Amino acid sequence: MSELPISRFSLPELQDLPEDIRQRIEAVQEKSGFVPNVFLVLARRPDEFRAFFAHHDALMDKQSGLTKAEREMIVVATSSANACQYCVVAHGAILRIRAKNPLLADQVAVNYLKADITPRQKAMLDFAMQVALDSATVESEDIEALAEHGFSEEDIWDVGAIAAFFAMSNRMANLSGMRPNAEFYSMGR
Amino acid sequence: MSELPISRFSLPELQDLPEDIRQRIEAVQEKSGFVPNVFLVLARRPDEFRAFFAHHDALMDKQSGLTKAEREMIVVATSSANACQYCVVAHGAILRIRAKNPLLADQVAVNYLKADITPRQKAMLDFAMQVALDSATVESEDIEALAEHGFSEEDIWDVGAIAAFFAMSNRMANLSGMRPNAEFYSMGR
Amino acid sequence: MSELPISRFSLPELQDLPEDIRQRIEAVQEKSGFVPNVFLVLARRPDEFRAFFAHHDALMDKQSGLTKAEREMIVVATSSANACQYCVVAHGAILRIRAKNPLLADQVAVNYLKADITPRQKAMLDFAMQVALDSATVESEDIEALAEHGFSEEDIWDVGAIAAFFAMSNRMANLSGMRPNAEFYSMGR
Amino acid sequence: MSELPISRFSLPELQDLPEDIRQRIEAVQEKSGFVPNVFLVLARRPDEFRAFFAHHDALMDKQSGLTKAEREMIVVATSSANACQYCVVAHGAILRIRAKNPLLADQVAVNYLKADITPRQKAMLDFAMQVALDSATVESEDIEALAEHGFSEEDIWDVGAIAAFFAMSNRMANLSGMRPNAEFYSMGR
Amino acid sequence: MSELPISRFSLPELQDLPEDIRQRIEAVQEKSGFVPNVFLVLARRPDEFRAFFAHHDALMDKQSGLTKAEREMIVVATSSANACQYCVVAHGAILRIRAKNPLLADQVAVNYLKADITPRQKAMLDFAMQVALDSATVESEDIEALAEHGFSEEDIWDVGAIAAFFAMSNRMANLSGMRPNAEFYSMGR
Amino acid sequence: MSELPISRFSLPELQDLPEDIRQRIEAVQEKSGFVPNVFLVLARRPDEFRAFFAHHDALMDKQSGLTKAEREMIVVATSSANACQYCVVAHGAILRIRAKNPLLADQVAVNYLKADITPRQKAMLDFAMQVALDSATVESEDIEALAEHGFSEEDIWDVGAIAAFFAMSNRMANLSGMRPNAEFYSMGR
Repeated sequence: MSELPISRFSLPELQDLPEDIRQRIEAVQEKSGFVPNVFLVLARRPDEFRAFFAHHDALMDKQSGLTKAEREMIVVATSSANACQYCVVAHGAILRIRAKNPLLADQVAVNYLKADITPRQKAMLDFAMQVALDSATVESEDIEALAEHGFSEEDIWDVGAIAAFFAMSNRMANLSGMRPNAEFYSMGR
Repeated sequence: MSELPISRFSLPELQDLPEDIRQRIEAVQEKSGFVPNVFLVLARRPDEFRAFFAHHDALMDKQSGLTKAEREMIVVATSSANACQYCVVAHGAILRIRAKNPLLADQVAVNYLKADITPRQKAMLDFAMQVALDSATVESEDIEALAEHGFSEEDIWDVGAIAAFFAMSNRMANLSGMRPNAEFYSMGR
Repeated sequence: MSELPISRFSLPELQDLPEDIRQRIEAVQEKSGFVPNVFLVLARRPDEFRAFFAHHDALMDKQSGLTKAEREMIVVATSSANACQYCVVAHGAILRIRAKNPLLADQVAVNYLKADITPRQKAMLDFAMQVALDSATVESEDIEALAEHGFSEEDIWDVGAIAAFFAMSNRMANLSGMRPNAEFYSMGR
Repeated sequence: MSELPISRFSLPELQDLPEDIRQRIEAVQEKSGFVPNVFLVLARRPDEFRAFFAHHDALMDKQSGLTKAEREMIVVATSSANACQYCVVAHGAILRIRAKNPLLADQVAVNYLKADITPRQKAMLDFAMQVALDSATVESEDIEALAEHGFSEEDIWDVGAIAAFFAMSNRMANLSGMRPNAEFYSMGR
Repeated sequence: MSELPISRFSLPELQDLPEDIRQRIEAVQEKSGFVPNVFLVLARRPDEFRAFFAHHDALMDKQSGLTKAEREMIVVATSSANACQYCVVAHGAILRIRAKNPLLADQVAVNYLKADITPRQKAMLDFAMQVALDSATVESEDIEALAEHGFSEEDIWDVGAIAAFFAMSNRMANLSGMRPNAEFYSMGR
Repeated sequence: MSELPISRFSLPELQDLPEDIRQRIEAVQEKSGFVPNVFLVLARRPDEFRAFFAHHDALMDKQSGLTKAEREMIVVATSSANACQYCVVAHGAILRIRAKNPLLADQVAVNYLKADITPRQKAMLDFAMQVALDSATVESEDIEALAEHGFSEEDIWDVGAIAAFFAMSNRMANLSGMRPNAEFYSMGR
């Protein structure tokens, strides 16, 4: 199966990439043991690659009022709503690891309303889904409802901004036919 | 009307911003005569701001097989489908200017199928709308259909990537309740 | 651009029209300085023309608990939901003039939830949109909710009847491919 | 059951109505043996009443390339899509009578794709449903497709205009909670 | 009209059927005076036939907190939402008979929100429609809301299970193009 | 996690169940090493239980022109469209085992258009999804299109009947809040 194309668009040769991008790819390979295909698929456009991952890291890797597992829940729930194979499979793996829970990712992907999460987390995902699927209807009341669950202004921005970032990411994966690495499917189970 | 809030989230003081962000804001003010509110609303998160505008510029400002007016058509059509007030008003202004056509932005915003555009541009917008609204259904046939209208592989990536970027941008504007500057409404008419 | 067709259906010659219809068209030309295309497109069916404009005038021109600007808001919001190019452009112009507000029409067209309107007007548009898009769900509770905003029984009939009339009007414009006159785009800005 | 309200809005007294409206109502009572409730519900607004029925008669009662049964099929199919109780029940009765077929109205109301109609009639209803439910997507190709089934320009206008008129009529019935007369249910069976 | 096909799939000969199935068909013919086509269309698969009707009878024929008319209301409302010609016509007939009301079936089929039913029955149909059309959103609150109308745990199971069973049944009828017997249209009027 | 409820409805005691149902449950426990919760949740209604599993076995366990893996693909794709946690997780496990492919179930669940399946299997799932989500539009052309991929009349019935059966099954699981056994998540990976 390793020979199936990972993108509908042409891929750059690793040695032709700008130094910073090659280094980022090599670093992730060293850390993970493989190169997630998103790095290879997006590298054909170095400026877009840099902005994409800088944005991703700013939202997903910093300290925040949301746990890392909660941020991955947002990714998995909204990516499933967008039927994004790459994001559900890859971030499902990360969610299992972050949450130390082998069941949670599949639960959130199929129907977060039935997942083993707290009412606060359900409210978080309700809002993330609204931003992902029907952002035109977001009103101040929706934001106040989140605040009542203890989310700060910064937390609420994070919930919405993660849903917004993966609205883009899901569409890039669906546009390119991005194939998830086989490694992701079994990680954290 | 200038006293209506431009965001649901708190705004930073200009003098507290990192130097590079302040310079970017001052540069756009000098060029445009006013500061589009998107710069002020997003500046509260400097890292996200930098990534957002780097990504925007990589897609919208470079040389490409798509004219600048065509790229703005993609923004206006998909932002209207997402009911994003800021993006339709601001990029509608830019589209009028880029296309030197005072009617085109409103036509594309209301119903691009009835706009004064070429069949090639209609095919471009059909695909952009599919990426914006139903990216899970994108298949190789859709991409080949665009190629038959003379779009290159790079052009097709641009069409999809612009639709994907504004999927994010629209959601950030709807999340924050971003208010378009009054100046945009009459520009280019 | 003046040579683009204004309808997919054949147009009558002005001199062949019944006297009352020709007089109506000449009167509107005198008043507005041009003939809005809706008069020319519908004139091919004199009986339908007479009923259409009699109905329009009965709803839009009389004294009522709704201001003329409010009635135009209903037209612009529901016509945008139906992606009716003619009605959004033409009635957007009238709304700008009636409301003496150059921004309001574009705001209402893109997303009335974000427009500079009062809570009472938002409730009015919520109901108009329900009638326009999902009238089967209208129940007594919806009507009582409007009454609590101070709308009388006659006002509520007007809100619903205007939404219903433009449900027809939008479909006639979309059926015929009715082209808005270029004059409308800049009126009242 | 005769005491259930026929409208959510107040009804005029027959003797208070303008003479022409009272005469129209008396004429229909004489012809049908009862007064269809639509006449009573709309009579509270004489000018709108006159325009509504003049429009209705111009579309439904004249000679045309469409048979009267075909015009009623359009009404039943689109009114069912709008879940308009009054129009499905009342025009279902008329369709049974016009078509001399006791089964056709229920078939068309539930799923016109499975009704005992000709391919030409199915094409007619496909187009009527597009006008009723998604008129923004009507393009010249749709009209040409109808022409290939032998519909003239005037016929196509009629199909679309009837769908458009009942888009209004369905919304007025749903707005007012218009109750069908019990007589309609069994007529023509 | 009796020669129109009653299924897109081949039908078995009555004499070739297993004895128990033939007996069931003969029993229903004796009782009703005709063989409802669903028996003939499904008989080509004896094991599926047996399971289908055993399931149907377990839900529809036993004693229960729901009247038989109420159970038929659920069938008619959800089958109409699925545009299932066979089920709306056949169970509409049964509903008229069970409820001894010639108007109710058509009312429920077109728009149960406007039917002459009690608030308790409306709540029952609201829940049945949620199960039929959007079962993923069923939460404990929805079930508690039904309980407040006096429905027991067993009643609520029945409401949901009937909606679920006819979700299957409607799809089998739409798959096979199952034709309702002409007899059903006029029964109980 | 084993103490989380597996149903919103009360569960019977195993020893109170009719002998045949208890035997079936013990047999599946012996074979699988655990009792899938669907057996426990449905056992409260013995007649419905018997019909449900007889129907299931008639469709899923017999010899057929569809492989067992293909039948499970239909279950996983349509159950995911219905957001049925139990069916996606349990039948995903079975699909991995039947197909001897640890990746396929997740691919089909997220977006079968991107799964590693043959064009024939994609056509099969296109049709199954049409039956699951929009069965009212099934026409003879859809069935002929499947036949061109080599599906026999019996195969096509199977595809549709499995989609129809799980339309019911998904709704029963969503109605009852049926919890998948933890064992399923890792089977076949």
